[in-house]
Amino acid sequence: MNNTKIKAIKQTLKIEKAVKKILDKIEFPELTSEVVPIEEALGRILVENLKSPKEIPQYDKSAVDGYALVAENTFGASLINPLILRKAGQVKTGDIDTTEVKDGEAVLLYTGSRIPKGANAVLMVEYTNIIDNEKIEIHASVAPGQNVSQSGEDVKSGELILKKGTRLKPQDLGMLVALGLTKVEVLKKPKIALLSTGSELIPPGSEDTLGRTIDVNRIIISSMARVLGAEVIDLGIAKDDLDEIKLKIEDGMAKGDLIIVTGGTSVGDTDLTLDAINSIDKPQTLIHGISIRPGKPTGLAILKNKFIASLSGYPVAAMIGFEALVKPILIKMMGIFEDPTPVIRAKLTRRITSSLGEKNYVRVRVEKSDGEFIAYPVRSTGSGIISSMIRANGFLIIPEDREGIDEEEIVEILLFRPIDEVI
Amino acid sequence: MNNTKIKAIKQTLKIEKAVKKILDKIEFPELTSEVVPIEEALGRILVENLKSPKEIPQYDKSAVDGYALVAENTFGASLINPLILRKAGQVKTGDIDTTEVKDGEAVLLYTGSRIPKGANAVLMVEYTNIIDNEKIEIHASVAPGQNVSQSGEDVKSGELILKKGTRLKPQDLGMLVALGLTKVEVLKKPKIALLSTGSELIPPGSEDTLGRTIDVNRIIISSMARVLGAEVIDLGIAKDDLDEIKLKIEDGMAKGDLIIVTGGTSVGDTDLTLDAINSIDKPQTLIHGISIRPGKPTGLAILKNKFIASLSGYPVAAMIGFEALVKPILIKMMGIFEDPTPVIRAKLTRRITSSLGEKNYVRVRVEKSDGEFIAYPVRSTGSGIISSMIRANGFLIIPEDREGIDEEEIVEILLFRPIDEVI
Repeated sequence: MNNTKIKAIKQTLKIEKAVKKILDKIEFPELTSEVVPIEEALGRILVENLKSPKEIPQYDKSAVDGYALVAENTFGASLINPLILRKAGQVKTGDIDTTEVKDGEAVLLYTGSRIPKGANAVLMVEYTNIIDNEKIEIHASVAPGQNVSQSGEDVKSGELILKKGTRLKPQDLGMLVALGLTKVEVLKKPKIALLSTGSELIPPGSEDTLGRTIDVNRIIISSMARVLGAEVIDLGIAKDDLDEIKLKIEDGMAKGDLIIVTGGTSVGDTDLTLDAINSIDKPQTLIHGISIRPGKPTGLAILKNKFIASLSGYPVAAMIGFEALVKPILIKMMGIFEDPTPVIRAKLTRRITSSLGEKNYVRVRVEKSDGEFIAYPVRSTGSGIISSMIRANGFLIIPEDREGIDEEEIVEILLFRPIDEVI
Repeated sequence: MNNTKIKAIKQTLKIEKAVKKILDKIEFPELTSEVVPIEEALGRILVENLKSPKEIPQYDKSAVDGYALVAENTFGASLINPLILRKAGQVKTGDIDTTEVKDGEAVLLYTGSRIPKGANAVLMVEYTNIIDNEKIEIHASVAPGQNVSQSGEDVKSGELILKKGTRLKPQDLGMLVALGLTKVEVLKKPKIALLSTGSELIPPGSEDTLGRTIDVNRIIISSMARVLGAEVIDLGIAKDDLDEIKLKIEDGMAKGDLIIVTGGTSVGDTDLTLDAINSIDKPQTLIHGISIRPGKPTGLAILKNKFIASLSGYPVAAMIGFEALVKPILIKMMGIFEDPTPVIRAKLTRRITSSLGEKNYVRVRVEKSDGEFIAYPVRSTGSGIISSMIRANGFLIIPEDREGIDEEEIVEILLFRPIDEVI
C-alpha cells in the first residue's frame, strides 16, 4: 500500500464515498496464487488473463452428417440434373482420419468428424442417394467451405479467453478442459482472521447461558466470508480487555490478510477495538463510524499493511457492516467482479421513515399476491434481533437523501433468500 | 414414485409443461438426512421445519446503558424535580447476576445485561447524575417495561424458525447457534451419476487430440450439479456402443439417485441412450425431445424409480438441457426453493429470429453504456461452441409464442456472470 497517499478519514462518511475513497488510494498487495486441478477450480479466481494456447476446433470439421468432397465437383448438380461421384470410404466419428479425398470422390462422415485432406466442403446426406458400393448420386451443389466448421472458428490461438479476476464457472472449466489444460493458476484464498469481543460472550454450544450471550457473529461473518471465497482463521472470543484484544489482533495480523473484529465498540463510552489498534502502532487510515443503519459502529484501520475492520457486536449490524464495508474491500483485494444481485420490484405495505444522511437497510418480507410482489417491512426492535434476517427475504435500501418511503410506493428489493423460503 | 399415475409422454412438449406434468405426478422418494456440525452446514438443506427449543432472549435484558430500577420509583422525576435513589451496585455485561433491586434502589448495567430481580424498567444513564458512592439523582421517569427487551421478544419457544427445504445461509447458522444448537439435521447430498457417451470423446488432459474431441461435458455438468448441492459420481466415457452404455447406466443406477447421460442422441439416426434404457427395462415415463433451442435432444426416463436424463452431447445444449430439465427435478427432489436469479433490463442491439413453438436461449453480452444496459447477441455457429458461454454474461430467453425480438426492444436478461467479467 502506498502510505504517502493515504490520509486519515475520521468523520462519519457516506458509505460508498468512504469505501471508494479508501480503495482508490490504496495499492493492494500483490496477489498470491496457487495451481489447482481443474476439477477443484469451481468458484476459484483466475489470477491472469487467459489466452488460448491453441485453435478450437483444432482442425476443420463437418457441421453436418454428409459427404466430404471437392465443392467444385458439385457445381450444377440438382434434382433434375444429378451428378455421380465415387464413394471413397467413410470416416466414423472419432476416427483419426488418414483418408484423402481426390477429385470426383466423396467420403461419408458425421457431424464433428475431421474433414479429410483434399475436401473443401460437405454435402448433407439428404441431398444424396447411394447407387451402389462405389457410387453416389448428388442432387445439390455446395460452395467451398460450406458445412465446414473452420479450425479456429470457436477460439483462435492467442485469443483472450477469460479475464483476470474471473470467478470460474462451470462453462469456464469446460473451456479450460477443451483447451487441453488439466490445471489452472488461481488466487490463493485470502485469509480472514475473525475475532469476537465482549465479556458477555460464550462460545456456541456452551451450557447455561443465563446472563451470558452466545457468540453468533463468528459463524455468521465467517460464513459470509466463505461465500465470497475467503478462508477464515478463528481468533475466538476476547473479553472486554484492552490487552487481550490487542494480543488477539496481533495474532490475527500475523496469520491473516484482513482482520475483522466484532463488538467492543459499545462498551460504555470507549471503543476497545480502536484503542487496541492504536496501542499496537499508529494506523494509517481510519474510518470510525459509517452512516449506515443498522451497522453504525463500523470502523476500518490499516495497520502495517493489513486491513482491520471493526464491526458492531450486534449480529444484524455486523452483517450489514460486512456487506457495506468488508465486501467491497475483499472484492478489490481479490481483484474480482461483483456478482449480479437478484432485485425485485415490489409494492411497500406501509410507510417507513429513515434518517436523512443515513443509508438504511430495511429488512422486508416479499410475498407474491395476485401476480404482484408486496414487501412487508419486518418489525424488529433492534439490530441484535437475528430473527429479522430469518423472517426477511430481502433488503430495501433507503439512500441517504431520503427521509422515508411512502406506503404503496414501488421499491426495488435486493433478494437474499428465495421468496417462498421465508416463514 | 406412484407408477400407476404415470403416463408416457413421448411427443416434444413445451418445456415447463413437460417438466410440470412429470413432477406433479411423481411421488419423490423420502429424503435421506444426516447430522452435521453447524460449522459445516452452510448451503446445506434443512430436512424438517425447525421450531425454537427456547426463548430468545432467554431473560429480560436491558436495551440501553442505564439503571435498572422499579419504574414506580421514578414517577414524577424531572430536571426541575429530581428524585434520589440508592445505588445498589453494578451489573457488568456478562455477569451472572444475583443482585436483587429493592424498592428505592437502582443498579447500573449495560446494554444486553440481564435485568436483576425486582427491577421492571431501565432509566438511561443520560437522565442520571451520580451524587456519591451511595446515591444517584434521576431527572426523568420511565414506565414499567421501558428499555427492557422482554424474554422471548425475538423468538418464542416453539415458534417456527426455519422452513423445511431452506438452504442454510450465514444468518440461519447464527440463529441455530443462538438457539444453543451445535449440530443440525440436513439433507444428504443427492448423488448424480454422470456419463458422457461418444466414440469421438477422449478424457480431459489426453495427448494428441487430433481427430478426437475432449469431453468437456462431465466437468461442466458436474459443476452445475455441485452448485445446486449435489454430489457427483463420475461414470466416465462410454463409446457409441449399446452394451457399454447399458452397463454404465446400470452402474449409475446402482450408485446414484439420478443419472445424467450426455451425447448418444445424434449418432446417425439412432438414440443409443434411449435404446440402452429400453434394453434394461421398460421405462415408466419418457420425454423424448423438448422444444428448447439449443438443447433439443433432451430426454427423460424413469426406470426402476430412478430418473435418467439424457442431454445433448453439445456442451451448450447440455447446459441448457440441465437448466431446463434437470434443475427443476433436482429442486423438487431436494425439496428446496429456487434461488432468485439476477435479471437486468437491457436494449437489444439487433433483431433476433426464433422459431415459433420453441423456447430459445440466446446468449448475450450485456454492457453498460451511458447509464443504459445494452445486450449484444453473441454470434455462434452452433451449440457446440462453448466460447459463446464465455463471451456471454446472460441469457435472453425467447418464449415459444414469439418469432423473434426486434432491434431496440427492451428485454429482460438473466445474468449468469458479472457484467464486467466478460471480455
